[in-house]
Amino acid sequence: MNMVDITAAQAAYRDELVEAGLLIPTGVDGLYGRSGVFEDVVERFDALVTRWGGQDGAEVMRFPPALNRQYFEESEYLKSFPHLAGTIHSFGGDEKAHRTLLRRLEEGQDWTEDQVATDVVMTPAACYPVYPTIARRGPLPGEGKLIDVFSYCFRHEPSIDPARMQLFRMREYIRIGTPDQVVEFRELWLERGREMMGTLDVPLDVDVANDPFFGRAGAMLSNSQREQKLKFELLIPITSTEKPTACLSFNYHQDHFGHLWDIHTADGGVAHTACVGFGMERVALALFRHHGFDTAQWPASVRKVLWG
Amino acid sequence: MNMVDITAAQAAYRDELVEAGLLIPTGVDGLYGRSGVFEDVVERFDALVTRWGGQDGAEVMRFPPALNRQYFEESEYLKSFPHLAGTIHSFGGDEKAHRTLLRRLEEGQDWTEDQVATDVVMTPAACYPVYPTIARRGPLPGEGKLIDVFSYCFRHEPSIDPARMQLFRMREYIRIGTPDQVVEFRELWLERGREMMGTLDVPLDVDVANDPFFGRAGAMLSNSQREQKLKFELLIPITSTEKPTACLSFNYHQDHFGHLWDIHTADGGVAHTACVGFGMERVALALFRHHGFDTAQWPASVRKVLWG
Repeated sequence: MNMVDITAAQAAYRDELVEAGLLIPTGVDGLYGRSGVFEDVVERFDALVTRWGGQDGAEVMRFPPALNRQYFEESEYLKSFPHLAGTIHSFGGDEKAHRTLLRRLEEGQDWTEDQVATDVVMTPAACYPVYPTIARRGPLPGEGKLIDVFSYCFRHEPSIDPARMQLFRMREYIRIGTPDQVVEFRELWLERGREMMGTLDVPLDVDVANDPFFGRAGAMLSNSQREQKLKFELLIPITSTEKPTACLSFNYHQDHFGHLWDIHTADGGVAHTACVGFGMERVALALFRHHGFDTAQWPASVRKVLWG
Repeated sequence: MNMVDITAAQAAYRDELVEAGLLIPTGVDGLYGRSGVFEDVVERFDALVTRWGGQDGAEVMRFPPALNRQYFEESEYLKSFPHLAGTIHSFGGDEKAHRTLLRRLEEGQDWTEDQVATDVVMTPAACYPVYPTIARRGPLPGEGKLIDVFSYCFRHEPSIDPARMQLFRMREYIRIGTPDQVVEFRELWLERGREMMGTLDVPLDVDVANDPFFGRAGAMLSNSQREQKLKFELLIPITSTEKPTACLSFNYHQDHFGHLWDIHTADGGVAHTACVGFGMERVALALFRHHGFDTAQWPASVRKVLWG
């Protein structure tokens, strides 16, 4: 399938989802409301992730969809993914400035240029608020830390692919500790993620992957990430079998975040980190693709896994 | 209690919540992570709202925390609340512009001024994406519509009051129909909301209220809103008995949104709208204030209502 066909298949699936009422269009590519049926699948899958990962004793943290801009600036996200970030801006003017804003709006001019950056930035990945939080607590305990997060994330990449939303939800488990602890965690979830998704009766594959680094320097980072096998993805075909969609990802950051945030293990070493991420909308879209839009008609085994 | 005392009480309660681990500070006033215990209370309250409102046959819609900028511009929010809105901006430059951005960041200069407004704006209230969605469907059925939404909302009002977050969650039921249908809905929820919150054993009062309209013209709008009794709030003391916190609100918009979005009833009239909103974090904060930080020690009657 060439790019034209893939794009057509994405547009067709999006239209089907809208027609079925599962996605609610908003007039912006990659920004959708969802029906109660869609949300029920997301909630059931979220509960499934808890069933598979809940026994490991993770600390639950839930952050809003934005983070401290200072933390964001320190995270080096802007080095690698400036094109995906979203900063939140607001109006800080007086009544005269307000009249100017309204006049511009009325006349169809750009009224946004006087908006000023606030202290908050859209969360690019659910784990970002976790590292400074853990860093503030001082050295890790001997067993390290395991954190459970779930958050809306924003990435500025308008697309007609329903599996590439600008605002989407990501559940994550994050392991912070010694290299051994962290590598063991990622191995565990590479295996467990495959097994868990297997119970949902969808075709899947696990492959090495890279993040979408910006620019020419980014291409080198991507290559290096692949060579070191730092990122794996669990892929499920949604609108293309040749270009299946990453629904889970398994990331080993080495000591990148440990260095950035000064997180130390009990023995004084720089902490390593890894995370497993679950793309909630993507998993739901994969299930609707393979089992149909009527969840009552899904295979009995899948219904049992999700609804018990 | 004067303002100084109220501010001190707010700061003290915030510190207690952070100390107990229920709120996770992020370095920005009004932006907090929450523990699993806090989230459990939010989820249980959410389920309680469903128990009281679920039999009315509302259509469930779930929107992400941002909406189409064009819809936002048409909503007239900027006329009334320019100071609270948050627009999402992003980087659209090339590699040269990227180097400039990184140099500014490195040198501690403002790197945000070249960020450009995207097509999306933070959702200011959970019901905003609903009106254009309903308008697209054409005239209402004879019985009108009832919608169930739940969304993160953003308001740029940094505060040390833990009950005034910049990002918070709002559950809403929205009624769209004839004036009679809509007024009946609001009356129903004024009664039902009081009864439902009564089962949680917290002191409460219902009073007429106004939205925080901007500027001098806004003061007139506030007065008019109060005189016409368009907005009521269910208030619970959290950090002050003299200035209790609005935890639920009951809003009659008359034909404001119907006119704006061209929503018509079955008989061709302009639709009226009303909504009841539940401030999820505020209700949780009120419960922790009145029943303590250990949910296992909450009164048996309250535990039964929330956990069954």
